[in-house]
Amino acid sequence: MLGYRRARDELVADCPLRAATDLLAHRWDPVVLLALGVGARRRVDLRADIGGVSDKALTESLRRLVRNGLVGRAEYPAAPPRVEYALTALGKSLVAGPMRALGDWVTEHGHELLAAQGDPEE
Amino acid sequence: MLGYRRARDELVADCPLRAATDLLAHRWDPVVLLALGVGARRRVDLRADIGGVSDKALTESLRRLVRNGLVGRAEYPAAPPRVEYALTALGKSLVAGPMRALGDWVTEHGHELLAAQGDPEE
Repeated sequence: MLGYRRARDELVADCPLRAATDLLAHRWDPVVLLALGVGARRRVDLRADIGGVSDKALTESLRRLVRNGLVGRAEYPAAPPRVEYALTALGKSLVAGPMRALGDWVTEHGHELLAAQGDPEE
Repeated sequence: MLGYRRARDELVADCPLRAATDLLAHRWDPVVLLALGVGARRRVDLRADIGGVSDKALTESLRRLVRNGLVGRAEYPAAPPRVEYALTALGKSLVAGPMRALGDWVTEHGHELLAAQGDPEE
């Protein structure tokens, strides 16, 4: 199965699946990952690519993604130094696997989701 | 692709992918979905199944999942009425698709994630 049971009949909040869902829980992180899916990018390019992200939010997102090993930061000699961000192998595997599965799901079922959310609440 | 571009070269925070990642962003929601993957459950059974969830957190999670059309609530005549929660077809598709992909990814790459998170931060 999904490896989420620590012991028989016990589901836990800190199950491995949580570690994966946490990676996608922050507002901008999936968007930044998608933007980097195209290739390595400078910060200024990312800001231009991504509509509506603030400088602070982009900084925090990149820091989190680097800390989680999904994105790498490379400095190239220049004046001022050229800094680029790129997906790591781990980041690429997250984009190609779970994020694509989420994208496919929402393409297929997004209208059902919106219909449900539009219904009057209980 | 993932259908996340509203216009050429513009990535947006409210892209359809966000609607899907939002579904998994709350702490207990993926755990409750997994617990219901086994079959319909009463609240009291869910509380017993899930380690460490408070009554309030479970209530909020079930309400969100029902509102998003992932979980259905059924009342059966009895005294007091028997209430059961179960995955809807939409909920089943989310568990079988994206959540399984996340589970598979973390099974394969979880150690890399933990290794990255354990490295001293920049």
